Amino acid sequence: MQTTTGKRQEQWTIQRVLEEKPGNSIELRGCIHHIRDMAEFAFIILRRYDGTVQCVLDAARMDIAAQELTDGMCVAVTGPVAFDQRAPHGFELRVESLRVLSRPTGALEAPVHKYKLNLGLESDLNVRPVSLRNLRKRAVFKIQEGIVRGFREFLHGEGFTEIHSPKIVKVGAEGGANIFKLDYFGQKAFLAQSPQFYKQTMVGVFDRVFEVGPVFRAEKHATTRHLNEYTSLDFEMGYIDSFADVMEMETAMLQHVMAVLKSEYAPQLELLSVALPKVESIPQVTFVRAKEMVAEKYNRKIRDPHDLEPEEEQLIGQLFQEEYGADFVFVTHYPTKKRPFYAMDDPEDPKHTLSFDLLLRGMEVTTGGQRIHDYDMQIAKMERLHMNVADFESYLMAHKNGLPPHGGLGIGLERLTMKLIGESNIREATLFPRDINRLIP
Amino acid sequence: MQTTTGKRQEQWTIQRVLEEKPGNSIELRGCIHHIRDMAEFAFIILRRYDGTVQCVLDAARMDIAAQELTDGMCVAVTGPVAFDQRAPHGFELRVESLRVLSRPTGALEAPVHKYKLNLGLESDLNVRPVSLRNLRKRAVFKIQEGIVRGFREFLHGEGFTEIHSPKIVKVGAEGGANIFKLDYFGQKAFLAQSPQFYKQTMVGVFDRVFEVGPVFRAEKHATTRHLNEYTSLDFEMGYIDSFADVMEMETAMLQHVMAVLKSEYAPQLELLSVALPKVESIPQVTFVRAKEMVAEKYNRKIRDPHDLEPEEEQLIGQLFQEEYGADFVFVTHYPTKKRPFYAMDDPEDPKHTLSFDLLLRGMEVTTGGQRIHDYDMQIAKMERLHMNVADFESYLMAHKNGLPPHGGLGIGLERLTMKLIGESNIREATLFPRDINRLIP
Repeated sequence: MQTTTGKRQEQWTIQRVLEEKPGNSIELRGCIHHIRDMAEFAFIILRRYDGTVQCVLDAARMDIAAQELTDGMCVAVTGPVAFDQRAPHGFELRVESLRVLSRPTGALEAPVHKYKLNLGLESDLNVRPVSLRNLRKRAVFKIQEGIVRGFREFLHGEGFTEIHSPKIVKVGAEGGANIFKLDYFGQKAFLAQSPQFYKQTMVGVFDRVFEVGPVFRAEKHATTRHLNEYTSLDFEMGYIDSFADVMEMETAMLQHVMAVLKSEYAPQLELLSVALPKVESIPQVTFVRAKEMVAEKYNRKIRDPHDLEPEEEQLIGQLFQEEYGADFVFVTHYPTKKRPFYAMDDPEDPKHTLSFDLLLRGMEVTTGGQRIHDYDMQIAKMERLHMNVADFESYLMAHKNGLPPHGGLGIGLERLTMKLIGESNIREATLFPRDINRLIP
Repeated sequence: MQTTTGKRQEQWTIQRVLEEKPGNSIELRGCIHHIRDMAEFAFIILRRYDGTVQCVLDAARMDIAAQELTDGMCVAVTGPVAFDQRAPHGFELRVESLRVLSRPTGALEAPVHKYKLNLGLESDLNVRPVSLRNLRKRAVFKIQEGIVRGFREFLHGEGFTEIHSPKIVKVGAEGGANIFKLDYFGQKAFLAQSPQFYKQTMVGVFDRVFEVGPVFRAEKHATTRHLNEYTSLDFEMGYIDSFADVMEMETAMLQHVMAVLKSEYAPQLELLSVALPKVESIPQVTFVRAKEMVAEKYNRKIRDPHDLEPEEEQLIGQLFQEEYGADFVFVTHYPTKKRPFYAMDDPEDPKHTLSFDLLLRGMEVTTGGQRIHDYDMQIAKMERLHMNVADFESYLMAHKNGLPPHGGLGIGLERLTMKLIGESNIREATLFPRDINRLIP
């Protein structure tokens, strides 16, 4: 009887080469990122998940001609390792034999080996399966991986439980028109705009929960900072004393994320010249005060007293950068009008909520706050807002059966990535973005 | 200027109590899982994310009467810890003061404190926000968390990169009628049946990738083992020598998952009397041979030579359990007819594919195999299947620009959880299941 035992392929990794410093022959597999044929010698830059490796082909000693090799071929190269400080990772492989594992059909649709691709964004997105092979493009998504790892790792350590909530729902959490509709076996259904209801419900079960998953917003405008589908990092925590506990938790989480990036994603940060934001302490300012400060400092009229315009967010970022050297700013106490029905009003000032946004370098990357946990208080607020309470019966079951005081937040992963790496369009921080005009790749 | 510095609430956890063995007074927060009022004393079982704590109220010494307290209240109790081996975790808290943090509106909609809830499945699902507070119910989802953690942790260690692919797509990966349709700003779109196209595409970028996310199947039948939305654990790996590499990787991953469960989720396994499956080695059998073996041993006629009937899967599980003591079985070389267009045919027998299912205790929990990486081979197969190649242009861009030989798999998280804990209905292993009749909670 044939069995599997969990034995993995014996494959060399760059790390193993560096640790063992072998003189003997090794085999490395990867994709020909670029080949330069110099008549007597050819240099191959082999692209692997763990970096690039320089390989040298001596034409005289090979049974394969360098001319037969092209960018985009996947190969297995064998030969001894030679140390060379000029090569990536300080070594090169002197190829003695080479096996072609697969071939592209012709020239690549983008010159992925270039340092900068120099494709316009639309062209880039059109050939995304190829353009992502560019080292700087893919580095963005390694950093994104690091953010998510740090987020989860930190919250797990703080006693949060990971959940998976449904994305096909009967009622939207945010309400409004920006929701995708769906025919669900004859019933009207929606795509979840956030896991809000479920994470609050699960606070009643696990006290502290988090979720990383897709959310869907049918926003009809195309901007540089909106997607119609994005990845939301959500957490919700019970037994808080105030919404400040949520902000402190996010601060500690971000400190952990930055530490993870710094220690485990240094090559990617360097490749993209990313300066990590300061997270030791994050200033707080109320919504009303932030608006005033910006109006005063930049001699700007307050047009919408109930919301922050994108330009105001940007100026708040600028002001706190200039005056306090801060990359992040918590803006607190948003107007009740502009927050969802589950937001807890400030008992001392019911026109404002116990809520916050977190801005990074002048753009909102998190929305959070304390939620209403008391059933009667929630019903009263919904009635004030003329909502149909019956539609929310299964959500309100959690309140009815008792929920601890709680709060939480949602972070847009692509937004956070975008601001972290200093890109100006959110699509740059999304593998395969969805916007009003784009459904492929 | 007020700032956050990442300082978390000073809260006692059960672990901290156990480590510090304090004689002095501590405060614990939690939900009154159950209160038993014995006139002079009352016993509260406090439910927390990290376990339950027995609290003793001495009526004479309290400023709050035990009669005012009910199940479902969230409270903060303060008092000294006393060691008592009969109590959970070996200690109890002698309550000196108690603060009510929140209240349910009345009696709970399910007696969550009972060891077994004894609700029928439909009733359970109707009051899911409450029934999940039952200790055995919620233990299922801690175990599920452990599976996902183990999956990710293992793959990260093997050099896989986590990705987030779009769920709103233009073309379905599995084809067929079981796909949800969506109006996307006037365009026809679908909900992704799997991240298949994207993970293959990303093999061209990161060599090895994984994703944990929702997938959607509009199957019109309600069975005990299907959901219309489930969480898929997917990985895809490049530079394989054969599809056996994928099975070995899965075996090693499962070994790691079981080790994580054993070491970190022992209380939950015990609570549910779960015997972890054997994963040291997993037998393999071909599809054709498995059908024959079952037909011979159980004197059963082969009705459908191209697919496994659920009963056959069950009997294969039974046979391998009886004859080899195996919980898992890899069934390999499924018929080409029944596998998707991207499956690699066996060159020695093109009627079968280089593919596998993994059965756990008689039920499929994984589907995987080697994929076609060569563009021309893929086009030829699509044409044989009379597919419209143009529809798949952005997917095939990856092949066209070169993809290493690769394979991968998808695991149904709820299925795996269900079989692991020995439940017979997949809804028991789903927080908020979606089926043809159920869209709430």
